Amino acid sequence: MTDNNTRSLSLLGLGAMGTALAAAWQDAGYALTVWNRTPGRATALADVAPAAVAVPTVAEAVAASRLVVVCLLDDDSVGEALADADLTGKDLVNLTTSTPAQARARAEWACERGARYLDGGIMAVPPMIGAAGSGAYVFYSGSRGLFEAHRDALSAPAGTNYVGEDAGFAALHDVALLSAMYGMFSGVAHAFALIRKEEIAPTDLAPLLTSWLTAMGQSVGSMAGHLEDGDYTTGVVSNLAMQVAGSATLLRTAEEQGVSTELLTPYLTLMKQRLAAGHAEEDTTGVTDLLLR
Amino acid sequence: MTDNNTRSLSLLGLGAMGTALAAAWQDAGYALTVWNRTPGRATALADVAPAAVAVPTVAEAVAASRLVVVCLLDDDSVGEALADADLTGKDLVNLTTSTPAQARARAEWACERGARYLDGGIMAVPPMIGAAGSGAYVFYSGSRGLFEAHRDALSAPAGTNYVGEDAGFAALHDVALLSAMYGMFSGVAHAFALIRKEEIAPTDLAPLLTSWLTAMGQSVGSMAGHLEDGDYTTGVVSNLAMQVAGSATLLRTAEEQGVSTELLTPYLTLMKQRLAAGHAEEDTTGVTDLLLR
Repeated sequence: MTDNNTRSLSLLGLGAMGTALAAAWQDAGYALTVWNRTPGRATALADVAPAAVAVPTVAEAVAASRLVVVCLLDDDSVGEALADADLTGKDLVNLTTSTPAQARARAEWACERGARYLDGGIMAVPPMIGAAGSGAYVFYSGSRGLFEAHRDALSAPAGTNYVGEDAGFAALHDVALLSAMYGMFSGVAHAFALIRKEEIAPTDLAPLLTSWLTAMGQSVGSMAGHLEDGDYTTGVVSNLAMQVAGSATLLRTAEEQGVSTELLTPYLTLMKQRLAAGHAEEDTTGVTDLLLR
Repeated sequence: MTDNNTRSLSLLGLGAMGTALAAAWQDAGYALTVWNRTPGRATALADVAPAAVAVPTVAEAVAASRLVVVCLLDDDSVGEALADADLTGKDLVNLTTSTPAQARARAEWACERGARYLDGGIMAVPPMIGAAGSGAYVFYSGSRGLFEAHRDALSAPAGTNYVGEDAGFAALHDVALLSAMYGMFSGVAHAFALIRKEEIAPTDLAPLLTSWLTAMGQSVGSMAGHLEDGDYTTGVVSNLAMQVAGSATLLRTAEEQGVSTELLTPYLTLMKQRLAAGHAEEDTTGVTDLLLR
Protein backbone atom coordinates (compact mmCIF):
# COMPACT_ATOMS: atom_id res chain seq x y z
CA MET A 1 0.00 0.00 0.00
CA THR A 2 3.07 2.25 -0.01
CA ASP A 3 3.11 3.15 -3.69
CA ASN A 4 -0.10 4.81 -4.76
CA ASN A 5 0.81 4.33 -8.41
CA THR A 6 0.68 0.58 -8.18
CA ARG A 7 -2.04 0.08 -5.55
CA SER A 8 -4.74 2.18 -7.15
CA LEU A 9 -6.30 2.24 -10.57
CA SER A 10 -9.17 3.69 -12.57
CA LEU A 11 -11.55 1.53 -14.54
CA LEU A 12 -13.73 2.70 -17.40
CA GLY A 13 -16.58 0.41 -18.28
CA LEU A 14 -18.82 -1.57 -15.94
CA GLY A 15 -20.34 -4.16 -18.17
CA ALA A 16 -20.31 -7.76 -16.97
CA MET A 17 -16.55 -8.02 -17.52
CA GLY A 18 -15.74 -4.60 -16.05
CA THR A 19 -17.78 -5.38 -12.96
CA ALA A 20 -16.00 -8.71 -12.49
CA LEU A 21 -12.63 -6.97 -12.86
CA ALA A 22 -13.60 -4.31 -10.32
CA ALA A 23 -14.61 -6.95 -7.79
CA ALA A 24 -11.32 -8.82 -8.29
CA TRP A 25 -9.23 -5.66 -7.85
CA GLN A 26 -11.10 -4.60 -4.75
CA ASP A 27 -10.67 -8.10 -3.30
CA ALA A 28 -6.95 -7.77 -3.98
CA GLY A 29 -6.82 -4.51 -2.03
CA TYR A 30 -6.71 -1.96 -4.85
CA ALA A 31 -8.25 1.47 -4.49
CA LEU A 32 -10.66 1.83 -7.42
CA THR A 33 -12.10 4.78 -9.26
CA VAL A 34 -14.76 3.75 -11.74
CA TRP A 35 -16.76 5.33 -14.53
CA ASN A 36 -19.53 4.01 -16.70
CA ARG A 37 -21.37 5.72 -19.54
CA THR A 38 -24.72 5.02 -17.92
CA PRO A 39 -24.53 5.47 -14.13
CA GLY A 40 -26.84 2.51 -13.35
CA ARG A 41 -24.01 0.01 -13.55
CA ALA A 42 -22.02 1.82 -10.89
CA THR A 43 -24.94 1.31 -8.54
CA ALA A 44 -24.92 -2.41 -9.33
CA LEU A 45 -21.20 -2.38 -8.61
CA ALA A 46 -21.87 -1.39 -5.02
CA ASP A 47 -22.72 -5.01 -4.30
CA VAL A 48 -19.43 -6.49 -5.44
CA ALA A 49 -17.03 -3.59 -4.94
CA PRO A 50 -18.56 -1.25 -2.33
CA ALA A 51 -15.32 0.68 -1.77
CA ALA A 52 -15.01 1.69 -5.43
CA VAL A 53 -15.47 5.40 -6.03
CA ALA A 54 -17.82 6.06 -8.94
CA VAL A 55 -17.20 9.35 -10.72
CA PRO A 56 -19.49 11.03 -13.26
CA THR A 57 -16.90 11.95 -15.89
CA VAL A 58 -14.09 10.19 -17.74
CA ALA A 59 -11.83 13.14 -16.98
CA GLU A 60 -12.19 12.58 -13.25
CA ALA A 61 -11.61 8.85 -13.57
CA VAL A 62 -8.48 9.34 -15.67
CA ALA A 63 -7.16 12.04 -13.34
CA ALA A 64 -7.54 9.81 -10.29
CA SER A 65 -4.90 7.18 -11.14
CA ARG A 66 -1.80 6.63 -13.19
CA LEU A 67 -3.08 3.20 -14.26
CA VAL A 68 -6.24 3.52 -16.36
CA VAL A 69 -7.96 0.32 -17.47
CA VAL A 70 -10.57 0.48 -20.21
CA CYS A 71 -13.11 -2.26 -20.80
CA LEU A 72 -15.80 -0.91 -23.11
CA LEU A 73 -18.11 -2.25 -25.82
CA ASP A 74 -15.78 -1.80 -28.77
CA ASP A 75 -12.89 0.24 -30.10
CA ASP A 76 -15.15 3.13 -31.21
CA SER A 77 -16.41 3.43 -27.63
CA VAL A 78 -12.82 3.77 -26.42
CA GLY A 79 -12.12 6.61 -28.83
CA GLU A 80 -15.33 8.39 -27.87
CA ALA A 81 -14.94 7.97 -24.11
CA LEU A 82 -11.32 9.17 -24.05
CA ALA A 83 -11.65 11.83 -26.76
CA ASP A 84 -11.23 14.76 -24.36
CA ALA A 85 -9.27 13.10 -21.55
CA ASP A 86 -5.75 14.22 -20.69
CA LEU A 87 -3.69 11.04 -21.06
CA THR A 88 -0.28 12.63 -20.52
CA GLY A 89 1.86 10.36 -18.35
CA LYS A 90 -0.90 7.77 -18.02
CA ASP A 91 -0.54 4.03 -18.30
CA LEU A 92 -3.46 2.95 -20.45
CA VAL A 93 -4.50 -0.71 -20.48
CA ASN A 94 -7.16 -1.47 -23.04
CA LEU A 95 -9.11 -4.66 -22.38
CA THR A 96 -11.81 -3.79 -24.89
CA THR A 97 -12.33 -6.45 -27.58
CA SER A 98 -10.47 -5.26 -30.69
CA THR A 99 -8.94 -6.54 -33.87
CA PRO A 100 -5.12 -6.44 -34.13
CA ALA A 101 -5.29 -3.45 -36.49
CA GLN A 102 -7.60 -1.58 -34.12
CA ALA A 103 -5.22 -2.28 -31.23
CA ARG A 104 -2.22 -1.05 -33.24
CA ALA A 105 -4.01 2.14 -34.22
CA ARG A 106 -5.15 2.69 -30.64
CA ALA A 107 -1.57 2.24 -29.42
CA GLU A 108 -0.39 4.93 -31.84
CA TRP A 109 -3.28 7.17 -30.78
CA ALA A 110 -2.33 6.72 -27.10
CA CYS A 111 1.34 7.40 -27.83
CA GLU A 112 0.44 10.67 -29.55
CA ARG A 113 -1.41 11.66 -26.37
CA GLY A 114 1.60 10.97 -24.16
CA ALA A 115 0.43 7.69 -22.65
CA ARG A 116 2.05 4.26 -22.49
CA TYR A 117 -0.27 1.66 -23.99
CA LEU A 118 -0.90 -2.01 -23.31
CA ASP A 119 -3.56 -3.99 -25.10
CA GLY A 120 -5.22 -7.02 -23.55
CA GLY A 121 -7.26 -9.97 -24.78
CA ILE A 122 -9.20 -11.68 -22.01
CA MET A 123 -9.39 -15.47 -22.33
CA ALA A 124 -12.24 -15.89 -19.90
CA VAL A 125 -15.88 -15.18 -19.23
CA PRO A 126 -16.73 -12.86 -16.32
CA PRO A 127 -17.43 -15.59 -13.72
CA MET A 128 -13.84 -16.84 -14.13
CA ILE A 129 -12.33 -13.45 -13.25
CA GLY A 130 -10.78 -13.38 -9.78
CA ALA A 131 -11.61 -17.05 -9.24
CA ALA A 132 -8.51 -18.96 -8.17
CA GLY A 133 -7.83 -22.00 -10.32
CA SER A 134 -10.29 -20.95 -13.04
CA GLY A 135 -7.52 -20.98 -15.63
CA ALA A 136 -8.52 -17.49 -16.76
CA TYR A 137 -5.77 -15.38 -18.22
CA VAL A 138 -5.21 -12.27 -20.30
CA PHE A 139 -2.92 -11.87 -23.31
CA TYR A 140 -1.05 -8.57 -23.12
CA SER A 141 0.99 -6.83 -25.78
CA GLY A 142 2.40 -3.35 -26.31
CA SER A 143 4.51 -1.43 -23.80
CA ARG A 144 6.71 -3.85 -21.90
CA GLY A 145 7.55 -1.10 -19.41
CA LEU A 146 3.89 -0.61 -18.57
CA PHE A 147 3.38 -4.36 -18.23
CA GLU A 148 6.35 -4.72 -15.87
CA ALA A 149 5.40 -1.67 -13.80
CA HIS A 150 1.87 -2.91 -13.19
CA ARG A 151 2.45 -6.63 -13.23
CA ASP A 152 0.99 -7.10 -9.73
CA ALA A 153 -2.18 -5.18 -10.51
CA LEU A 154 -2.60 -6.94 -13.84
CA SER A 155 -2.13 -10.33 -12.18
CA ALA A 156 -4.91 -9.81 -9.63
CA PRO A 157 -7.99 -10.61 -11.75
CA ALA A 158 -6.47 -13.40 -13.88
CA GLY A 159 -3.21 -14.87 -15.13
CA THR A 160 -1.12 -12.84 -17.56
CA ASN A 161 0.71 -13.74 -20.74
CA TYR A 162 2.77 -10.96 -22.34
CA VAL A 163 3.16 -11.81 -26.03
CA GLY A 164 5.22 -8.95 -27.43
CA GLU A 165 5.75 -5.25 -28.09
CA ASP A 166 3.40 -5.28 -31.10
CA ALA A 167 0.17 -3.90 -29.64
CA GLY A 168 -1.84 -6.08 -32.06
CA PHE A 169 -0.45 -9.39 -30.80
CA ALA A 170 -2.72 -9.72 -27.76
CA ALA A 171 -5.82 -9.39 -29.95
CA LEU A 172 -4.28 -11.68 -32.56
CA HIS A 173 -3.62 -14.42 -30.01
CA ASP A 174 -7.10 -13.95 -28.56
CA VAL A 175 -8.78 -14.23 -31.97
CA ALA A 176 -6.59 -17.17 -33.02
CA LEU A 177 -7.64 -19.18 -29.97
CA LEU A 178 -11.32 -18.25 -30.28
CA SER A 179 -11.33 -19.09 -33.99
CA ALA A 180 -9.76 -22.47 -33.25
CA MET A 181 -12.41 -23.06 -30.59
CA TYR A 182 -15.24 -22.46 -33.08
CA GLY A 183 -13.57 -24.94 -35.42
CA MET A 184 -13.61 -27.51 -32.63
CA PHE A 185 -17.22 -26.63 -31.81
CA SER A 186 -18.17 -27.12 -35.47
CA GLY A 187 -16.67 -30.61 -35.37
CA VAL A 188 -18.46 -31.36 -32.12
CA ALA A 189 -21.79 -30.09 -33.51
CA HIS A 190 -21.37 -32.39 -36.51
CA ALA A 191 -20.52 -35.35 -34.25
CA PHE A 192 -23.59 -34.80 -32.07
CA ALA A 193 -25.77 -34.40 -35.16
CA LEU A 194 -24.58 -37.80 -36.42
CA ILE A 195 -25.97 -39.57 -33.34
CA ARG A 196 -29.01 -37.33 -32.83
CA LYS A 197 -31.54 -39.85 -34.18
CA GLU A 198 -29.82 -42.91 -32.71
CA GLU A 199 -30.10 -44.62 -29.35
CA ILE A 200 -26.80 -43.15 -28.23
CA ALA A 201 -26.84 -40.69 -25.33
CA PRO A 202 -24.97 -37.44 -26.04
CA THR A 203 -23.59 -37.65 -22.50
CA ASP A 204 -22.10 -41.06 -23.38
CA LEU A 205 -20.46 -39.67 -26.51
CA ALA A 206 -19.21 -36.49 -24.80
CA PRO A 207 -16.36 -37.98 -22.72
CA LEU A 208 -15.21 -39.99 -25.77
CA LEU A 209 -15.16 -36.82 -27.85
CA THR A 210 -13.35 -34.86 -25.16
CA SER A 211 -10.59 -37.40 -24.65
CA TRP A 212 -10.21 -38.00 -28.40
CA LEU A 213 -9.93 -34.28 -29.13
CA THR A 214 -7.46 -33.88 -26.29
CA ALA A 215 -5.35 -36.72 -27.70
CA MET A 216 -5.53 -35.32 -31.24
CA GLY A 217 -4.76 -31.85 -29.91
CA GLN A 218 -1.20 -33.08 -29.46
CA SER A 219 -0.81 -33.01 -33.25
CA VAL A 220 -1.08 -29.22 -33.10
CA GLY A 221 2.52 -29.25 -31.93
CA SER A 222 3.70 -31.28 -34.89
CA MET A 223 1.79 -29.01 -37.30
CA ALA A 224 3.56 -26.04 -35.71
CA GLY A 225 6.92 -27.74 -36.16
CA HIS A 226 6.09 -28.40 -39.80
CA LEU A 227 5.13 -24.78 -40.39
CA GLU A 228 8.38 -23.64 -38.83
CA ASP A 229 10.74 -25.88 -40.77
CA GLY A 230 8.71 -25.84 -43.99
CA ASP A 231 8.72 -29.63 -44.35
CA TYR A 232 5.24 -31.04 -43.80
CA THR A 233 6.24 -34.70 -44.14
CA THR A 234 8.38 -35.25 -41.03
CA GLY A 235 7.05 -38.00 -38.80
CA VAL A 236 3.79 -38.33 -40.72
CA VAL A 237 2.01 -41.63 -40.02
CA SER A 238 -1.34 -40.90 -41.64
CA ASN A 239 -0.59 -39.02 -44.83
CA LEU A 240 -2.84 -36.79 -46.89
CA ALA A 241 -3.48 -39.50 -49.51
CA MET A 242 -4.77 -41.84 -46.79
CA GLN A 243 -6.77 -39.14 -45.06
CA VAL A 244 -8.46 -37.98 -48.24
CA ALA A 245 -9.31 -41.60 -49.07
CA GLY A 246 -10.76 -42.03 -45.59
CA SER A 247 -12.79 -38.83 -45.80
CA ALA A 248 -15.21 -40.50 -48.22
CA THR A 249 -16.49 -42.61 -45.30
CA LEU A 250 -17.09 -39.47 -43.24
CA LEU A 251 -19.11 -37.81 -46.00
CA ARG A 252 -21.07 -40.95 -46.79
CA THR A 253 -21.88 -41.47 -43.11
CA ALA A 254 -23.18 -37.92 -42.81
CA GLU A 255 -25.44 -38.56 -45.79
CA GLU A 256 -26.70 -41.84 -44.30
CA GLN A 257 -27.45 -40.13 -41.00
CA GLY A 258 -29.25 -37.21 -42.65
CA VAL A 259 -26.66 -34.69 -41.50
CA SER A 260 -25.58 -31.68 -43.55
CA THR A 261 -21.90 -31.71 -44.45
CA GLU A 262 -21.64 -27.92 -44.48
CA LEU A 263 -19.29 -27.85 -41.47
CA LEU A 264 -17.19 -30.77 -42.67
CA THR A 265 -16.81 -30.18 -46.41
CA PRO A 266 -14.74 -26.96 -46.36
CA TYR A 267 -11.79 -28.58 -44.61
CA LEU A 268 -12.00 -31.83 -46.57
CA THR A 269 -12.10 -29.81 -49.79
CA LEU A 270 -8.87 -28.04 -48.86
CA MET A 271 -7.27 -31.39 -47.99
CA LYS A 272 -8.18 -32.66 -51.47
CA GLN A 273 -6.89 -29.47 -53.05
CA ARG A 274 -3.56 -29.84 -51.28
CA LEU A 275 -3.38 -33.51 -52.27
CA ALA A 276 -4.14 -32.63 -55.90
CA ALA A 277 -1.24 -30.15 -55.79
CA GLY A 278 1.10 -33.10 -55.25
CA HIS A 279 1.47 -33.30 -51.47
CA ALA A 280 0.37 -36.89 -50.83
CA GLU A 281 3.11 -37.58 -48.28
CA GLU A 282 2.35 -34.59 -46.08
CA ASP A 283 -0.04 -34.44 -43.15
CA THR A 284 -2.79 -31.81 -43.13
CA THR A 285 -0.51 -28.88 -42.22
CA GLY A 286 -0.64 -27.54 -45.79
CA VAL A 287 -4.30 -26.59 -45.43
CA THR A 288 -3.06 -23.56 -43.48
CA ASP A 289 -1.19 -22.25 -46.52
CA LEU A 290 -4.28 -22.56 -48.70
CA LEU A 291 -6.08 -20.08 -46.44
CA LEU A 292 -3.64 -17.27 -47.13
CA ARG A 293 -4.64 -14.86 -49.83
CA MET B 1 -2.99 -72.13 -24.61
CA THR B 2 -5.55 -74.77 -23.55
CA ASP B 3 -8.50 -73.53 -25.56
CA ASN B 4 -7.73 -73.42 -29.25
CA ASN B 5 -10.86 -71.35 -29.93
CA THR B 6 -9.63 -68.42 -27.91
CA ARG B 7 -5.87 -68.61 -28.46
CA SER B 8 -5.83 -68.76 -32.23
CA LEU B 9 -7.32 -66.60 -34.91
CA SER B 10 -7.32 -66.01 -38.63
CA LEU B 11 -6.63 -62.61 -40.12
CA LEU B 12 -7.61 -61.50 -43.60
CA GLY B 13 -5.79 -58.44 -44.86
CA LEU B 14 -2.16 -57.46 -44.38
CA GLY B 15 -2.10 -53.80 -45.15
CA ALA B 16 -0.31 -51.53 -42.69
CA MET B 17 -3.05 -52.00 -40.08
CA GLY B 18 -3.40 -55.76 -40.64
CA THR B 19 0.34 -56.22 -40.30
CA ALA B 20 0.40 -54.22 -37.06
CA LEU B 21 -2.48 -56.31 -35.71
CA ALA B 22 -0.72 -59.56 -36.66
CA ALA B 23 2.43 -58.46 -34.85
CA ALA B 24 0.45 -57.55 -31.73
CA TRP B 25 -1.40 -60.87 -31.67
CA GLN B 26 1.75 -62.89 -32.17
CA ASP B 27 3.43 -60.93 -29.37
CA ALA B 28 0.46 -61.79 -27.16
CA GLY B 29 0.93 -65.49 -27.91
CA TYR B 30 -1.85 -66.10 -30.42
CA ALA B 31 -1.49 -68.68 -33.18
CA LEU B 32 -2.16 -66.80 -36.41
CA THR B 33 -3.34 -67.89 -39.83
CA VAL B 34 -3.13 -65.05 -42.34
CA TRP B 35 -4.30 -64.35 -45.86
CA ASN B 36 -3.73 -61.42 -48.16
CA ARG B 37 -5.05 -60.84 -51.67
CA THR B 38 -1.56 -60.26 -53.00
CA PRO B 39 0.95 -62.66 -51.38
CA GLY B 40 3.73 -60.05 -51.17
CA ARG B 41 2.47 -58.65 -47.91
CA ALA B 42 2.62 -62.04 -46.23
CA THR B 43 6.34 -62.09 -46.99
CA ALA B 44 6.72 -58.67 -45.39
CA LEU B 45 4.83 -60.04 -42.41
CA ALA B 46 7.61 -62.57 -41.79
CA ASP B 47 9.62 -59.77 -40.18
CA VAL B 48 7.07 -58.85 -37.53
CA ALA B 49 5.13 -62.09 -37.06
CA PRO B 50 7.38 -64.95 -38.23
CA ALA B 51 5.22 -67.64 -36.63
CA ALA B 52 2.10 -66.63 -38.58
CA VAL B 53 0.99 -69.22 -41.13
CA ALA B 54 0.23 -67.61 -44.48
CA VAL B 55 -2.32 -69.50 -46.56
CA PRO B 56 -3.13 -68.92 -50.24
CA THR B 57 -6.94 -68.94 -50.05
CA VAL B 58 -9.59 -67.26 -47.94
CA ALA B 59 -11.28 -70.65 -47.50
CA GLU B 60 -8.20 -72.06 -45.79
CA ALA B 61 -7.83 -69.03 -43.56
CA VAL B 62 -11.48 -69.11 -42.51
CA ALA B 63 -11.36 -72.88 -41.92
CA ALA B 64 -8.32 -72.58 -39.63
CA SER B 65 -9.93 -70.66 -36.73
CA ARG B 66 -13.27 -69.95 -35.15
CA LEU B 67 -12.29 -66.28 -34.75
CA VAL B 68 -11.88 -64.63 -38.14
CA VAL B 69 -10.73 -61.00 -38.22
CA VAL B 70 -11.07 -59.03 -41.43
CA CYS B 71 -9.14 -55.82 -42.10
CA LEU B 72 -9.42 -55.01 -45.80
CA LEU B 73 -9.54 -51.90 -47.97
CA ASP B 74 -13.29 -51.32 -47.88
CA ASP B 75 -16.64 -53.02 -47.45
CA ASP B 76 -16.76 -54.20 -51.07
CA SER B 77 -13.43 -56.00 -50.55
CA VAL B 78 -14.96 -57.82 -47.57
CA GLY B 79 -17.90 -59.04 -49.65
CA GLU B 80 -15.61 -60.17 -52.46
CA ALA B 81 -13.05 -61.89 -50.26
CA LEU B 82 -15.64 -63.84 -48.27
CA ALA B 83 -18.11 -64.50 -51.10
CA ASP B 84 -17.42 -68.24 -51.25
CA ALA B 85 -16.20 -68.86 -47.70
CA ASP B 86 -18.15 -71.12 -45.35
CA LEU B 87 -18.88 -68.91 -42.37
CA THR B 88 -21.11 -71.35 -40.49
CA GLY B 89 -20.32 -71.20 -36.79
CA LYS B 90 -17.63 -68.58 -37.27
CA ASP B 91 -17.07 -65.47 -35.18
CA LEU B 92 -16.46 -62.72 -37.71
CA VAL B 93 -14.85 -59.47 -36.54
CA ASN B 94 -14.79 -56.81 -39.23
CA LEU B 95 -12.21 -54.07 -38.66
CA THR B 96 -12.51 -52.76 -42.22
CA THR B 97 -13.42 -49.06 -42.40
CA SER B 98 -17.17 -48.87 -43.10
CA THR B 99 -20.11 -46.56 -42.75
CA PRO B 100 -22.76 -47.48 -40.16
CA ALA B 101 -25.15 -48.63 -42.92
CA GLN B 102 -22.46 -50.80 -44.49
CA ALA B 103 -21.71 -52.36 -41.10
CA ARG B 104 -25.40 -53.06 -40.48
CA ALA B 105 -25.80 -54.67 -43.90
CA ARG B 106 -22.64 -56.71 -43.38
CA ALA B 107 -23.94 -57.92 -40.01
CA GLU B 108 -27.14 -59.12 -41.65
CA TRP B 109 -25.14 -60.75 -44.43
CA ALA B 110 -22.97 -62.58 -41.86
CA CYS B 111 -26.01 -63.68 -39.88
CA GLU B 112 -27.54 -65.19 -43.02
CA ARG B 113 -24.35 -67.21 -43.44
CA GLY B 114 -24.50 -68.58 -39.90
CA ALA B 115 -21.78 -66.41 -38.35
CA ARG B 116 -21.80 -64.14 -35.34
CA TYR B 117 -20.71 -60.63 -36.31
CA LEU B 118 -18.85 -57.86 -34.54
CA ASP B 119 -17.92 -54.62 -36.24
CA GLY B 120 -14.93 -52.57 -35.17
CA GLY B 121 -13.75 -49.00 -35.63
CA ILE B 122 -10.05 -48.55 -34.88
CA MET B 123 -9.16 -45.25 -33.19
CA ALA B 124 -5.45 -45.47 -33.93
CA VAL B 125 -2.83 -45.46 -36.62
CA PRO B 126 -0.78 -48.66 -37.13
CA PRO B 127 2.26 -47.61 -35.04
CA MET B 128 -0.02 -47.32 -31.98
CA ILE B 129 -1.24 -50.92 -32.26
CA GLY B 130 0.25 -53.22 -29.62
CA ALA B 131 2.11 -50.31 -28.05
CA ALA B 132 1.40 -50.11 -24.33
CA GLY B 133 0.23 -46.70 -23.22
CA SER B 134 -0.43 -45.48 -26.76
CA GLY B 135 -4.08 -44.82 -25.90
CA ALA B 136 -5.17 -46.79 -28.98
CA TYR B 137 -8.57 -48.44 -28.75
CA VAL B 138 -11.21 -50.00 -30.93
CA PHE B 139 -14.94 -49.34 -30.84
CA TYR B 140 -16.89 -52.60 -31.14
CA SER B 141 -20.57 -53.13 -31.79
CA GLY B 142 -22.76 -56.04 -32.82
CA SER B 143 -22.82 -59.47 -31.18
CA ARG B 144 -22.23 -59.06 -27.46
CA GLY B 145 -21.72 -62.83 -27.17
CA LEU B 146 -18.87 -62.72 -29.66
CA PHE B 147 -17.32 -59.72 -27.93
CA GLU B 148 -17.43 -61.44 -24.53
CA ALA B 149 -16.13 -64.77 -25.89
CA HIS B 150 -13.10 -63.16 -27.51
CA ARG B 151 -12.53 -60.26 -25.16
CA ASP B 152 -8.96 -61.36 -24.38
CA ALA B 153 -7.98 -61.69 -28.03
CA LEU B 154 -9.64 -58.40 -28.91
CA SER B 155 -7.85 -56.65 -26.05
CA ALA B 156 -4.38 -57.70 -27.18
CA PRO B 157 -3.70 -55.12 -29.95
CA ALA B 158 -5.48 -52.14 -28.34
CA GLY B 159 -8.07 -51.14 -25.78
CA THR B 160 -11.71 -52.04 -26.43
CA ASN B 161 -14.94 -50.11 -26.07
CA TYR B 162 -18.14 -52.05 -26.77
CA VAL B 163 -20.83 -49.52 -27.72
CA GLY B 164 -23.92 -51.65 -28.36
CA GLU B 165 -25.70 -54.43 -30.22
CA ASP B 166 -26.35 -52.22 -33.25
CA ALA B 167 -23.60 -53.27 -35.65
CA GLY B 168 -23.47 -49.73 -37.05
CA PHE B 169 -22.60 -48.06 -33.76
CA ALA B 170 -18.86 -48.78 -33.83
CA ALA B 171 -18.52 -47.10 -37.24
CA LEU B 172 -20.80 -44.29 -36.12
CA HIS B 173 -18.67 -43.58 -33.05
CA ASP B 174 -15.52 -43.81 -35.15
CA VAL B 175 -16.83 -41.37 -37.76
CA ALA B 176 -18.22 -39.00 -35.12
CA LEU B 177 -14.83 -38.70 -33.44
CA LEU B 178 -12.92 -38.32 -36.71
CA SER B 179 -15.36 -35.70 -37.97
CA ALA B 180 -14.98 -33.75 -34.73
CA MET B 181 -11.20 -33.97 -35.14
CA TYR B 182 -11.34 -32.41 -38.60
CA GLY B 183 -13.45 -29.63 -37.16
CA MET B 184 -10.76 -28.99 -34.59
CA PHE B 185 -8.06 -29.18 -37.28
CA SER B 186 -9.96 -26.62 -39.36
CA GLY B 187 -9.94 -24.24 -36.41
CA VAL B 188 -6.25 -24.85 -35.84
CA ALA B 189 -5.45 -24.30 -39.54
CA HIS B 190 -7.29 -20.97 -39.39
CA ALA B 191 -5.43 -19.98 -36.20
CA PHE B 192 -2.03 -20.75 -37.71
CA ALA B 193 -2.96 -18.89 -40.90
CA LEU B 194 -3.77 -15.79 -38.81
CA ILE B 195 -0.19 -15.59 -37.49
CA ARG B 196 1.54 -16.90 -40.64
CA LYS B 197 2.85 -13.49 -41.73
CA GLU B 198 3.60 -12.22 -38.24
CA GLU B 199 6.65 -12.51 -36.01
CA ILE B 200 4.96 -15.16 -33.91
CA ALA B 201 6.44 -18.66 -33.90
CA PRO B 202 3.88 -21.40 -34.59
CA THR B 203 5.61 -23.46 -31.88
CA ASP B 204 4.90 -20.63 -29.41
CA LEU B 205 1.23 -20.54 -30.37
CA ALA B 206 0.84 -24.35 -30.37
CA PRO B 207 0.89 -24.96 -26.59
CA LEU B 208 -1.52 -22.04 -26.09
CA LEU B 209 -3.86 -23.54 -28.66
CA THR B 210 -3.60 -27.00 -27.17
CA SER B 211 -4.34 -25.94 -23.62
CA TRP B 212 -7.14 -23.58 -24.72
CA LEU B 213 -8.81 -26.29 -26.80
CA THR B 214 -8.45 -28.75 -23.95
CA ALA B 215 -10.08 -26.27 -21.57
CA MET B 216 -12.88 -25.49 -24.04
CA GLY B 217 -13.33 -29.21 -24.70
CA GLN B 218 -14.96 -29.36 -21.29
CA SER B 219 -17.96 -27.53 -22.75
CA VAL B 220 -18.67 -30.61 -24.87
CA GLY B 221 -20.14 -32.14 -21.72
CA SER B 222 -22.49 -29.23 -21.15
CA MET B 223 -23.60 -29.32 -24.79
CA ALA B 224 -24.36 -33.03 -24.37
CA GLY B 225 -26.41 -32.29 -21.26
CA HIS B 226 -28.33 -29.62 -23.15
CA LEU B 227 -29.08 -32.00 -26.01
CA GLU B 228 -30.35 -34.58 -23.55
CA ASP B 229 -32.67 -32.37 -21.56
CA GLY B 230 -33.71 -30.19 -24.50
CA ASP B 231 -32.98 -26.93 -22.68
CA TYR B 232 -29.97 -25.15 -24.20
CA THR B 233 -29.93 -22.27 -21.71
CA THR B 234 -28.91 -24.01 -18.48
CA GLY B 235 -25.72 -22.61 -16.98
CA VAL B 236 -24.94 -20.49 -20.04
CA VAL B 237 -22.42 -17.72 -19.26
CA SER B 238 -21.64 -16.60 -22.81
CA ASN B 239 -24.90 -16.64 -24.69
CA LEU B 240 -25.54 -16.78 -28.41
CA ALA B 241 -26.29 -13.06 -28.64
CA MET B 242 -22.92 -12.23 -27.11
CA GLN B 243 -21.07 -14.82 -29.18
CA VAL B 244 -22.60 -13.64 -32.46
CA ALA B 245 -21.69 -10.06 -31.53
CA GLY B 246 -18.14 -11.17 -30.79
CA SER B 247 -17.82 -13.12 -34.03
CA ALA B 248 -17.58 -9.86 -36.00
CA THR B 249 -14.12 -9.35 -34.49
CA LEU B 250 -13.06 -12.82 -35.64
CA LEU B 251 -14.19 -12.20 -39.22
CA ARG B 252 -12.67 -8.73 -39.33
CA THR B 253 -9.36 -10.01 -37.97
CA ALA B 254 -9.24 -12.72 -40.65
CA GLU B 255 -9.77 -10.05 -43.27
CA GLU B 256 -7.03 -7.83 -41.79
CA GLN B 257 -4.61 -10.76 -41.73
CA GLY B 258 -5.41 -11.80 -45.32
CA VAL B 259 -6.90 -15.11 -44.25
CA SER B 260 -9.85 -16.75 -45.99
CA THR B 261 -12.85 -17.22 -43.72
CA GLU B 262 -14.05 -20.34 -45.53
CA LEU B 263 -13.38 -22.58 -42.52
CA LEU B 264 -14.83 -20.13 -40.01
CA THR B 265 -17.92 -18.75 -41.71
CA PRO B 266 -20.07 -21.93 -41.91
CA TYR B 267 -20.27 -22.31 -38.14
CA LEU B 268 -20.70 -18.58 -37.47
CA THR B 269 -23.49 -18.50 -40.05
CA LEU B 270 -25.36 -21.28 -38.24
CA MET B 271 -24.88 -19.44 -34.93
CA LYS B 272 -26.47 -16.34 -36.51
CA GLN B 273 -29.27 -18.42 -37.96
CA ARG B 274 -30.05 -19.93 -34.56
CA LEU B 275 -29.93 -16.47 -32.95
CA ALA B 276 -32.27 -15.08 -35.61
CA ALA B 277 -34.70 -17.90 -34.77
CA GLY B 278 -35.04 -16.42 -31.29
CA HIS B 279 -32.51 -18.32 -29.21
CA ALA B 280 -30.40 -15.46 -27.83
CA GLU B 281 -30.15 -16.96 -24.34
CA GLU B 282 -28.85 -20.34 -25.47
CA ASP B 283 -25.24 -21.37 -25.93
CA THR B 284 -24.14 -22.80 -29.29
CA THR B 285 -25.70 -26.25 -28.77
CA GLY B 286 -28.55 -25.44 -31.17
CA VAL B 287 -26.18 -25.45 -34.14
CA THR B 288 -26.36 -29.24 -33.95
CA ASP B 289 -30.10 -29.19 -34.66
CA LEU B 290 -29.60 -27.00 -37.72
CA LEU B 291 -27.47 -29.72 -39.30
CA LEU B 292 -30.28 -32.28 -39.32
CA ARG B 293 -32.22 -32.53 -42.53
